[in-house]
Amino acid sequence: MSSSYGENIRVTIFGQSHSKAIGVTIEGLPAGEELDFEQLRRFLNRRAPGQNAWSTARREPDAPEFVSGVVGNVTCGAPLTALIYNTDTRSKDYSQLARLPRPGHADYTAAIKYGGHQDFAGGGHFSGRLTAPLCIAGGICLQLLQREGIAVFSRIRRIGEVEDRAELRATTADKPFPVVDEQQGEKMRELIARAKAEGDSVGGVVECRVRGLPVGLGDGMFDGMESRLGRILFGIPAVKGVEFGDGFALAQMRGSEANDSFTVENGKIVTATNHCGGILGGITDGMPLVFRVALKPTPSIAREQRSVDLQTGEERPLVIEGRHDPCVVPRAVPVVEAAAAIAVYDALLQRRKER
Amino acid sequence: MSSSYGENIRVTIFGQSHSKAIGVTIEGLPAGEELDFEQLRRFLNRRAPGQNAWSTARREPDAPEFVSGVVGNVTCGAPLTALIYNTDTRSKDYSQLARLPRPGHADYTAAIKYGGHQDFAGGGHFSGRLTAPLCIAGGICLQLLQREGIAVFSRIRRIGEVEDRAELRATTADKPFPVVDEQQGEKMRELIARAKAEGDSVGGVVECRVRGLPVGLGDGMFDGMESRLGRILFGIPAVKGVEFGDGFALAQMRGSEANDSFTVENGKIVTATNHCGGILGGITDGMPLVFRVALKPTPSIAREQRSVDLQTGEERPLVIEGRHDPCVVPRAVPVVEAAAAIAVYDALLQRRKER
Amino acid sequence: MSSSYGENIRVTIFGQSHSKAIGVTIEGLPAGEELDFEQLRRFLNRRAPGQNAWSTARREPDAPEFVSGVVGNVTCGAPLTALIYNTDTRSKDYSQLARLPRPGHADYTAAIKYGGHQDFAGGGHFSGRLTAPLCIAGGICLQLLQREGIAVFSRIRRIGEVEDRAELRATTADKPFPVVDEQQGEKMRELIARAKAEGDSVGGVVECRVRGLPVGLGDGMFDGMESRLGRILFGIPAVKGVEFGDGFALAQMRGSEANDSFTVENGKIVTATNHCGGILGGITDGMPLVFRVALKPTPSIAREQRSVDLQTGEERPLVIEGRHDPCVVPRAVPVVEAAAAIAVYDALLQRRKER
Amino acid sequence: MSSSYGENIRVTIFGQSHSKAIGVTIEGLPAGEELDFEQLRRFLNRRAPGQNAWSTARREPDAPEFVSGVVGNVTCGAPLTALIYNTDTRSKDYSQLARLPRPGHADYTAAIKYGGHQDFAGGGHFSGRLTAPLCIAGGICLQLLQREGIAVFSRIRRIGEVEDRAELRATTADKPFPVVDEQQGEKMRELIARAKAEGDSVGGVVECRVRGLPVGLGDGMFDGMESRLGRILFGIPAVKGVEFGDGFALAQMRGSEANDSFTVENGKIVTATNHCGGILGGITDGMPLVFRVALKPTPSIAREQRSVDLQTGEERPLVIEGRHDPCVVPRAVPVVEAAAAIAVYDALLQRRKER
Repeated sequence: MSSSYGENIRVTIFGQSHSKAIGVTIEGLPAGEELDFEQLRRFLNRRAPGQNAWSTARREPDAPEFVSGVVGNVTCGAPLTALIYNTDTRSKDYSQLARLPRPGHADYTAAIKYGGHQDFAGGGHFSGRLTAPLCIAGGICLQLLQREGIAVFSRIRRIGEVEDRAELRATTADKPFPVVDEQQGEKMRELIARAKAEGDSVGGVVECRVRGLPVGLGDGMFDGMESRLGRILFGIPAVKGVEFGDGFALAQMRGSEANDSFTVENGKIVTATNHCGGILGGITDGMPLVFRVALKPTPSIAREQRSVDLQTGEERPLVIEGRHDPCVVPRAVPVVEAAAAIAVYDALLQRRKER
Repeated sequence: MSSSYGENIRVTIFGQSHSKAIGVTIEGLPAGEELDFEQLRRFLNRRAPGQNAWSTARREPDAPEFVSGVVGNVTCGAPLTALIYNTDTRSKDYSQLARLPRPGHADYTAAIKYGGHQDFAGGGHFSGRLTAPLCIAGGICLQLLQREGIAVFSRIRRIGEVEDRAELRATTADKPFPVVDEQQGEKMRELIARAKAEGDSVGGVVECRVRGLPVGLGDGMFDGMESRLGRILFGIPAVKGVEFGDGFALAQMRGSEANDSFTVENGKIVTATNHCGGILGGITDGMPLVFRVALKPTPSIAREQRSVDLQTGEERPLVIEGRHDPCVVPRAVPVVEAAAAIAVYDALLQRRKER
Repeated sequence: MSSSYGENIRVTIFGQSHSKAIGVTIEGLPAGEELDFEQLRRFLNRRAPGQNAWSTARREPDAPEFVSGVVGNVTCGAPLTALIYNTDTRSKDYSQLARLPRPGHADYTAAIKYGGHQDFAGGGHFSGRLTAPLCIAGGICLQLLQREGIAVFSRIRRIGEVEDRAELRATTADKPFPVVDEQQGEKMRELIARAKAEGDSVGGVVECRVRGLPVGLGDGMFDGMESRLGRILFGIPAVKGVEFGDGFALAQMRGSEANDSFTVENGKIVTATNHCGGILGGITDGMPLVFRVALKPTPSIAREQRSVDLQTGEERPLVIEGRHDPCVVPRAVPVVEAAAAIAVYDALLQRRKER
Repeated sequence: MSSSYGENIRVTIFGQSHSKAIGVTIEGLPAGEELDFEQLRRFLNRRAPGQNAWSTARREPDAPEFVSGVVGNVTCGAPLTALIYNTDTRSKDYSQLARLPRPGHADYTAAIKYGGHQDFAGGGHFSGRLTAPLCIAGGICLQLLQREGIAVFSRIRRIGEVEDRAELRATTADKPFPVVDEQQGEKMRELIARAKAEGDSVGGVVECRVRGLPVGLGDGMFDGMESRLGRILFGIPAVKGVEFGDGFALAQMRGSEANDSFTVENGKIVTATNHCGGILGGITDGMPLVFRVALKPTPSIAREQRSVDLQTGEERPLVIEGRHDPCVVPRAVPVVEAAAAIAVYDALLQRRKER
């Protein structure tokens, strides 16, 4: 079902950009897990809009309300549901959007799919706002993984043509602009500022590492770690590419370069290199799981664009009003961590059945 | 479940490289569909080993036996099961493989995951041979899609550093080496021959187009077309990257470049460009669906490699015997089409419920 | 996943008896369906407690709040979520319940399953209160089925030893005590009053008919109509038996009696009798689908019972305080309709894929 | 999907009565489990036709061929597939069946559902023959459960009006006619013989007990043990009723009778009675899980029946030729055990994720 993910836990996301509330239900969470709501709040803040100069307007972070699944702050085995109420619902007239689809958005495809009944206000269920409940679920999974010694961390790898090639070794959660190489980070911010000044937007790449994984997570064929992660990562709005380990660069390598030799380190079998990104045959090999996702530039730009009036069938210019992130990549960093945490935790529960 | 795919049809693949048989069950196929077994045989032949100079030894193509789900050659509504019997089962001693995992293969991860009980002969369930039943299912879906006016075709986009940039406009099924630009194809074959001569292997990229899709396939969030295709494509052995439309190149673009303007052509709404690969918000927009997958080089190479003896825990050199494809990319072309056809057909059935 | 049902729509129920809210998410509802909230309210009222003399205390009916999935009162294709806020949460000290499990309830099994972390207040997720969100989902499906000419109606068939054998031909929704034979209904109410006066409770049977079904709903083997309905009906608290058509009585019949002959009526193929309850091979045959569910007596009774203190491991008498329905059967009537409507609507969407 | 069952293992059954083969795939079996093929053969024999005087003609038992999922007789983690080849395929002309549906069979409903393309030979996928692969899967699960100390055993509880009320305490696997009270068994056989002599058939009830279950199997709401078992049991052809514990008799009981008091026995918490059949809130309570299924009489009888010609739309008499079991209940006994074993084993794997 389209808004659900997972076989061992199931995360179901509901809500539209301007519905009364957005939220998430997680089924299958083990009982007795203490949730650190303050830690979760800090995690959600990393995704919240208006935190920084390179984002738009200042707004209070979304505070989730937990309506079920916990007793106090401890999971009780029943489905956990958390809501975020939308405070500014349906304040504007969105009827224009219903007629004139924005390029790069789901307006046109949703209009056809749902026979004109989709919730077009603010992008409806397709809005980036729906990554907030994804982060609630992911933030919870991050806490549960942490207890198993598993850490998930991400960074901006690229904004436009600027790439941060420094190795990602630790979380960037404490940084306002999550890069490793601060100099490249400065160039990225300049690039974003320039795009914004020009009424334009820019895309980028987020890189993620999962450390502390046991050998054996992930299942053959369609439930390998790449398939599990691929499915959820492509569910993040704007993601158009996903690659593991050296990814597309592997296409240009020889087998003798790409194969990761097995060796022994501190009495443990490891691979000397990690071109495969910690996954062999869909199964974790104990090395860090590494992947990157490509995000397209924010489709909402200030410049005039061309569209077609769905009622008259005639071409018409379109100007999108309001303020928009000139680049969603910084805010996508925790979203990618959240998605990865959900997929990894689901695989971890699967592994428990195998003994 | 790891070896199953699909919500509206369900494709379940079984078998190991050297088990008695490999095969596939497809549940949910509509009744009354006539299957063209001869067309299917030709499709399977494109994947069969030993067809060309750049592949290994000559072998007869695998002929599937249909044991259920059809009356004659017409689907009857019951699950369809087809088998391919393995003729050369367990002829060799594979116990060496159980101890000394091959770099780049699933030997090590499967050994840990299955507590040493995995079928290590020829890679077991992780073998590329399991793409044969995937092609049976995909070949059937290709026929069903064809009746809806939907065509799926692929080509080699890249081998190592050689890229075929010519536009993919039609099937390459009739070509022994499936490229568009024959000159680049010649260079690719040279590259493969060189790698082979050096006891090495090489990776590449397959590009696929799906034409004739209606607007409205694919569902929001985790069942968007990218998620649906991503999950199954990453299930093909050696695939380490998947991108849609301009994919990773979108990360380097501005919104003003990347957005595909809506326009009218022959009274129909289309997009002027197709950077998004025919998918907006996870839903097909009526333009060709375009994606590429990156395949790592064949991990089985003739050169000596380093591994660790799982019994003694000591490093040991490893030499893989037998002949192996120096490049799996040409044979992966129909496999990618098969996977795409399954995912698209499943989405098409989903769409029928929406009216 | 335990609190979800359905393949084509998916109904997920969340909440505990005393959590902040209880609710339901429905994925997969077609877009553009107008919901009649007033009709839904009337349906929910039939299940609400305190409506009648034979139920307990007067309380306002639960009003659901729709937080997503609709624009106004029209479905928009996104997951629909409705909540009912619990107004009297955690007002009492339930720690006693944690130690001394009530016979016939899930207290003991949940305590072991969830390691003592279950929400024991009011039965938590196992409470009959969770049938309210089931009725929201079912009430919506009833409206959608009605548009297809399908009617679902139920009645009390039995309370204790009193049986209403009159044929069920039309809805009992307008009756305060939903029976066909009012005389038997009077006896049933007397029986309930007597049980109540004795500090006891009594069980019963609900019978349900679904009329207007097309031939062809339901799928072979594990998704036949009996399997689909069986799974959801056994999910209603207190249900311990489900039978279709003549059910257990068929075990005492001969084939020559039990077989329903085919015949022609008004140019349409029908069966002369309906011992099979409108289902052959798991598939609807166009006759009314008929089934009955057995409900055990309310386990909460005023009399002293025997239990074991989970902390000390010693037997202890238990007295359950508060007022409880001496018989849940009348209130179960709309719940059974709701469950049936969900199962039938899910099967109807499945059928659409078959053409 | 209709022919699949299970969330943690998945059992998929394929084949038609007269297709080349029937079979089953089991995904998710733990690796390293040794299968006793001889024990499995004995189990399958209990279901095989023609074993006894009260069954029809003598035939060799069906021997399954394991084509994948095992190395030798040890599971390897890959999907296990076993086949039984049909030796007498399509030997007769079944076109008559396509026109004149047999009362009580799926002929009519399948003809409409599949637009006349169903495999009508011998009942196709709806044939009782498909319980053979169910028994392969169930027989394997029985062995795995046995290793956990869990035993599943059944008996004929009723044939027509003759009931065996003696308590079921141990397996009846060694008895040619699986009852507890041999005197009642003799009466049952007489009843079957009489029905047969009269060209008729008779129904019955099978009772099953599962012993050795831990507390905590089964999940709330729609995945309680009743729901899990209900779904698979109703998938057995001819089953029209399922009840747990005292089942329908509970409807006639008072709460004070029906509630099972908790008490302590040998230092262990047990219930003094077992009216609930070992399940509270859908979760096993450590007492024997007890249920009964009602089977309708074999619809194939020798007497002339009435049907309608689907081509002409006219009523026509129908005489079914060939020999048929006058009572399927004895052969259903191991089938019920198989279905129960699959459901219980699936719940057991689910429980492992909870710690």
